[in-house]
Amino acid sequence: MAPQYAPSLRSRLPLVAFLLETIFILLFVFFVKIEQFEQIDRESDSKPFISSYAEFQDIHVMLFMGFGFLATFLVRYGFSGSGFNVLLAAMAVQWAVLMNGFLLAQRNHRGKFNINAVYCIMLLHIFGALFGVMVSWVLYREGVEPVHEKEKTDRKTGLFAMFGTLFLWMFWPSFNSALVNPRMGRGMKLTVIYGTYLSLAVSVVMAISVSVLSSSKGKMNMVHIQSSALSGGVAIGVAMTAVHTPWVAMTIGFCASLISALGFRYMKNHMLFAFECHDTCGVLNVHAIPGILGWFAHLFLRLTNNEGIIAVQFAVHHICVLLITVCVSVVMGVVTVSKFGSKEMKNLDTLIRGLQYICMNVVSTKCVCVRERLDIA
Amino acid sequence: MAPQYAPSLRSRLPLVAFLLETIFILLFVFFVKIEQFEQIDRESDSKPFISSYAEFQDIHVMLFMGFGFLATFLVRYGFSGSGFNVLLAAMAVQWAVLMNGFLLAQRNHRGKFNINAVYCIMLLHIFGALFGVMVSWVLYREGVEPVHEKEKTDRKTGLFAMFGTLFLWMFWPSFNSALVNPRMGRGMKLTVIYGTYLSLAVSVVMAISVSVLSSSKGKMNMVHIQSSALSGGVAIGVAMTAVHTPWVAMTIGFCASLISALGFRYMKNHMLFAFECHDTCGVLNVHAIPGILGWFAHLFLRLTNNEGIIAVQFAVHHICVLLITVCVSVVMGVVTVSKFGSKEMKNLDTLIRGLQYICMNVVSTKCVCVRERLDIA
Amino acid sequence: MAPQYAPSLRSRLPLVAFLLETIFILLFVFFVKIEQFEQIDRESDSKPFISSYAEFQDIHVMLFMGFGFLATFLVRYGFSGSGFNVLLAAMAVQWAVLMNGFLLAQRNHRGKFNINAVYCIMLLHIFGALFGVMVSWVLYREGVEPVHEKEKTDRKTGLFAMFGTLFLWMFWPSFNSALVNPRMGRGMKLTVIYGTYLSLAVSVVMAISVSVLSSSKGKMNMVHIQSSALSGGVAIGVAMTAVHTPWVAMTIGFCASLISALGFRYMKNHMLFAFECHDTCGVLNVHAIPGILGWFAHLFLRLTNNEGIIAVQFAVHHICVLLITVCVSVVMGVVTVSKFGSKEMKNLDTLIRGLQYICMNVVSTKCVCVRERLDIA
Repeated sequence: MAPQYAPSLRSRLPLVAFLLETIFILLFVFFVKIEQFEQIDRESDSKPFISSYAEFQDIHVMLFMGFGFLATFLVRYGFSGSGFNVLLAAMAVQWAVLMNGFLLAQRNHRGKFNINAVYCIMLLHIFGALFGVMVSWVLYREGVEPVHEKEKTDRKTGLFAMFGTLFLWMFWPSFNSALVNPRMGRGMKLTVIYGTYLSLAVSVVMAISVSVLSSSKGKMNMVHIQSSALSGGVAIGVAMTAVHTPWVAMTIGFCASLISALGFRYMKNHMLFAFECHDTCGVLNVHAIPGILGWFAHLFLRLTNNEGIIAVQFAVHHICVLLITVCVSVVMGVVTVSKFGSKEMKNLDTLIRGLQYICMNVVSTKCVCVRERLDIA
Repeated sequence: MAPQYAPSLRSRLPLVAFLLETIFILLFVFFVKIEQFEQIDRESDSKPFISSYAEFQDIHVMLFMGFGFLATFLVRYGFSGSGFNVLLAAMAVQWAVLMNGFLLAQRNHRGKFNINAVYCIMLLHIFGALFGVMVSWVLYREGVEPVHEKEKTDRKTGLFAMFGTLFLWMFWPSFNSALVNPRMGRGMKLTVIYGTYLSLAVSVVMAISVSVLSSSKGKMNMVHIQSSALSGGVAIGVAMTAVHTPWVAMTIGFCASLISALGFRYMKNHMLFAFECHDTCGVLNVHAIPGILGWFAHLFLRLTNNEGIIAVQFAVHHICVLLITVCVSVVMGVVTVSKFGSKEMKNLDTLIRGLQYICMNVVSTKCVCVRERLDIA
Repeated sequence: MAPQYAPSLRSRLPLVAFLLETIFILLFVFFVKIEQFEQIDRESDSKPFISSYAEFQDIHVMLFMGFGFLATFLVRYGFSGSGFNVLLAAMAVQWAVLMNGFLLAQRNHRGKFNINAVYCIMLLHIFGALFGVMVSWVLYREGVEPVHEKEKTDRKTGLFAMFGTLFLWMFWPSFNSALVNPRMGRGMKLTVIYGTYLSLAVSVVMAISVSVLSSSKGKMNMVHIQSSALSGGVAIGVAMTAVHTPWVAMTIGFCASLISALGFRYMKNHMLFAFECHDTCGVLNVHAIPGILGWFAHLFLRLTNNEGIIAVQFAVHHICVLLITVCVSVVMGVVTVSKFGSKEMKNLDTLIRGLQYICMNVVSTKCVCVRERLDIA
């Protein structure tokens, strides 16, 4: 009986998209041109372009294939999961070109956007996940069963989701290394690639182990694996600039996967009853908790390397950044839905789940922004 | 009841394939060897090879995954769609190595194959689509319903087709930039990559908007999106050498997607009734119409930059090229089927649809040819 | 009724994985650090890293997407096929880093691990396939029908397997070229890429032809194609260092595909009856027979280029390597299962098929080892 309750997007989405595209094109007319590198020596120009195009494509595969198919495990929402992902990412791409251009122009005059941007990057998983959980909390309505008919999965949709998961898993090292500030040197990039890679390898093994252990028949549950296998990448992504040895990366992946898999297995239903929050895709356990774990690892590793005043300054700064991220994401999550939060809307299952995809996509959208800066600017 | 009508390929395909492969291997014995670059400086040699291998793989992913899965949305023709695609592309690869070698050898003596080749590239979408539509028109038989049982789709086949679409969408910038003549300089390559990328981003947003707007329930139709999201890449591919600013690329993507999506929504069924032509995959709206739009954009942009005699010469040349392409594709489409066009064949549904895949594959086949030239020659 | 017979992995797998990961992390603490290339000139350092990362990702796509989805054609074992593949590959990655480090350290002192390693590489397909066939032979139990209920496939799982096949097919040239010893020069790498590419192109055409020819209705059988299309890559992979012209590569692909496709079509059921061995995935025809064909091609090509004593020495060495590989794989295959071979286990269908996946994965695991050496060491 779903379709009869679904809010029709017909009256809003096309109009908004049409207007936005028109505005984008007008802004591009006046502000954006393609750098031609004519003044740059041909030899030195060629290398960064060729190398960044391959990285650029890796990130694209993650965004469009990875996130696009990650949420196809729900039989009823396979099309929405991949369709809305493409829509948001394609808009984010244009938005990112504009924003990064403006930020770069401003930075060149004032030089103070840099650090904030870098920190925000780092905590994007925590932001996206808490944003989505708050949206889900506001839209909660009574009578939702832990296992809802609209949450049903089957074998084939599970394989589609495995597809998305594996694309994210494979190209995560490219993604994390693309976030490395080039001024930190090439050695840092290599360290991040190997660290992310090993952290993911450990986390997929532990995710499968916990999944087998927590099943009464000793079987793997693909949804557990699809969620927890990626937690190592999330955690190391937050901590990576402080990780200099492979075993630290592996330990972070080990812990992240363990916490994430146990959380997914045991916390999801408790959240439904205790906090009235329906976390369909388990974003809390995939993005928020591993992200916070990575944050702690980062803090701990930095403090053990520094001493005295600098360490205290760093810790205060670090803690403030987390608190600000948490507050902003929670407030924005609540505000975003309240705008639409009429009684009529609260009846709509579709929106509850639809918005969970959107908050997953906030993550991917921000990834595009990050990436575009490196490429266009 | 399909299988009982299907024409068996058993008596022809294996024999033809066996003979062709034998001929190919014999031709390779006498004519093809691998260039060893021994006489070339090692330093300058290494870069083009490494960089072109990544591009080469991007194009391969488009051909084998993209086109291979684009037509899997038909439940009954998923295997044929991907199987015949692989067969054709694998043969085209060998054919292309031979043809490009001969053309290159000839060009080096006479120097006149260059321009024609480049123009033919440019209009390959128009050629492929009109060829296919003509084949479909010749094979039309009365009583075909607008929505035929053999055209049914379902959720999971739709997701497979989304897969193919996204691979094409993501790597289209690689494809268009690979067609850029290296003599136009690296700046042109960069311009084409960004132009294609932005054109595709706009066209996917507009495709989704039109799809939502034209659905009475405000839902996305994945088949619309799979078709129209790519139209921006087709149009910009024809016009790209005349596009120097991002906003022009975005405007072309905007218009192409709008026309393509509306055409797919409203023209397909009219064509069935008015012209007795059953365009199952909507090749007319995905390839032909955006291609012609891109051709007009190219003409317009060139004319506004040139003046007097040169502009007139260019316009005449440009118009002749389009007319020749249209005529050749229409005639070849009719002739190709007429060879098989016995009464017995006209009863065969399978062939009608099978040939539509083949004409989609003519596009991909030509892409291989184009690509191979750049790599092998 | 499968689940009631299935051996629960709950009591073993999580414990083994947990212990192994702990041991890996401890070994990494003491032995592994990331090379920083600080002492190396920045300019010369940058190129190999950037180029090898792209190759590294190509191989990853083959291992995780290709092998992960190759065995999803069995409706009941789609999840196991991709899940156990990820588990094994992720463990192999960590194992490979350690082993290659130790081997490299040892080699630097003694300089004699090199040749063995290279030969073992070359024959990994034969090893993996025979290992798996022996496992299947030991676990054979009476009453297994040629077409078992648990071997059923359907259209959609067939398309997933096509996915895996195409990823393997596309990136096979990267894989074979990654195995080329850099000391053989860049020309060898190029020769291997083109050779593998053409061999695969021919083998897919012949696989489809044989499949159509051997079907009474003249239809393609996707399972045949998925198996035999890759045989050209296997055969050329064994012979590649002796292949210097494209037509030889094409001929090898032609013969490998023909033998593999005929074997798959006619030998599989005979093996069940004659040798009491149930080769579900046809590993014998995909990996072992094309591998042995490639071995013969290698021997023949080398002997025709050398004369006298050297040729005899080479032939003796070459034949010994094959015999050792065959013996080791057969013995290890039997021993591996005998450890678990209690009467209770012999009743278990799941294990029979599960282990076939594992032996497919032995192939992929070895690929990781090979690849890691090139990257980390």
